[in-house]
Amino acid sequence: MSEATDRRRFVATLTGIGVAGLAGLAAASGVGPQPGSPQDQPPLERLCRLPWPYREQDAGAAAQRAFATYPRGGCMLAVFDPIVRTAAERLGAPYTAFPFGMFTYGAGGVAGWGTPCGALNGAAAAFSLLSPQPTGLISALFAWYEREALPEAPPAGLRYPNVPAVAGSVLCHASIAAWCRASGKRSNSPERAERCGALSGSVAAKAVTLLNAQATRTLVVPAPDQATAACLGCHGAQGNLGNVAGRMTCAPCHTPSEFAASGHPKV
Amino acid sequence: MSEATDRRRFVATLTGIGVAGLAGLAAASGVGPQPGSPQDQPPLERLCRLPWPYREQDAGAAAQRAFATYPRGGCMLAVFDPIVRTAAERLGAPYTAFPFGMFTYGAGGVAGWGTPCGALNGAAAAFSLLSPQPTGLISALFAWYEREALPEAPPAGLRYPNVPAVAGSVLCHASIAAWCRASGKRSNSPERAERCGALSGSVAAKAVTLLNAQATRTLVVPAPDQATAACLGCHGAQGNLGNVAGRMTCAPCHTPSEFAASGHPKV
Repeated sequence: MSEATDRRRFVATLTGIGVAGLAGLAAASGVGPQPGSPQDQPPLERLCRLPWPYREQDAGAAAQRAFATYPRGGCMLAVFDPIVRTAAERLGAPYTAFPFGMFTYGAGGVAGWGTPCGALNGAAAAFSLLSPQPTGLISALFAWYEREALPEAPPAGLRYPNVPAVAGSVLCHASIAAWCRASGKRSNSPERAERCGALSGSVAAKAVTLLNAQATRTLVVPAPDQATAACLGCHGAQGNLGNVAGRMTCAPCHTPSEFAASGHPKV
Repeated sequence: MSEATDRRRFVATLTGIGVAGLAGLAAASGVGPQPGSPQDQPPLERLCRLPWPYREQDAGAAAQRAFATYPRGGCMLAVFDPIVRTAAERLGAPYTAFPFGMFTYGAGGVAGWGTPCGALNGAAAAFSLLSPQPTGLISALFAWYEREALPEAPPAGLRYPNVPAVAGSVLCHASIAAWCRASGKRSNSPERAERCGALSGSVAAKAVTLLNAQATRTLVVPAPDQATAACLGCHGAQGNLGNVAGRMTCAPCHTPSEFAASGHPKV
């Protein structure tokens, strides 16, 4: 059984919509069940069957649409919306009725809490709808985000100079702090808001590139960086300590001064 | 204009489905437009109109369903699914066709990366679908999660002793590390997996309690803890440095040894 098939079956179980439930959905939508090929299934069943069919998209167009969406809904929606809406518009109803607006919640690392960059959270949600194997895509995107100077390709329409910075972290808080250091601007400045719009553009473009690569079987998922791999050698699930779960780079939070103060062995 | 009305209008703009688009959706679903009251709108429009109607739920039942869901889809789905499915089942089609299975992506702080606890990410997504003002709910839930010893009310069916621990953070990685310290168990142990299922139960119960409180206008959103408020006094958006965006508690990552090494003023 392929992983894609496996995931569809898994999700069919999760959704808990059996034959009777689907018949109810079909009746409520005024469309009777259509036995035969998958294309003939009642429209509403298509919505909850994962992954949705994906066809190659244009990375540059996604970036520009993400930049345009950002001021209206923040970073998570800015990445989720162009990618999933493009797929939905190609597929038609019921996909186009998905409640896209729910992904405003991820702005500022979830309602301003500074946890993962909302652009990443939005891409991960999009991957989960559109890919049979979202985990590899998420890891490839997150590793790229930690290491690259972003925004990498400023979209058309910037009002301020683009200042790329390496976040060194997938967390919104750390990403914005790194950019504030590089730019000399404040976290609540209009330049920072525009940077997060442009960053959403870079993340949307990379997410589309990765989706396209997976669709053509050319996806490469990078290994953890060397320093983090060394930490996980002891602390990770397979290490002798085994007290850490995660793939985030360790360096921004766990510093040499902490090691010295805690008696941590020399690294 | 109320914030609820404002959000609906905002989302209607975001979804980009105008009158013509909705007519197309209705035709595709076999249901003609029904002018008049909102209840008479075509079913597919209801799906993308936020928030979905919410009616009080039972917190204990949500906890138990979250615990039962966890082994099949991880922490994010475990919290999102029982809350939103209960609402969807009361509302009927098209709500029941929502692709619930997409929220497997948040497990382990987004595909194992250790960013926000997936139970919190799932609750935030549920709030965004079901609440006219999700931001207050998210802040109330996240502040509670940082400070409480969790799992607080072990669900029926635990195989191992319940070991509550204060995470001191909304991040999955820090939450699991705190529990490993308290329990003496490894991050990849079956006890840890069960703890995350029970924790998802606690988060689902709290999320429902908060949704119910908001619906009855009794929601209270706690202020940031005193130490974090002191940090944000200088570093936050209104401070003289203004180089930090976020509400996460600072202490787990920014330690006295870091302050000493960096020449940070005494705190």
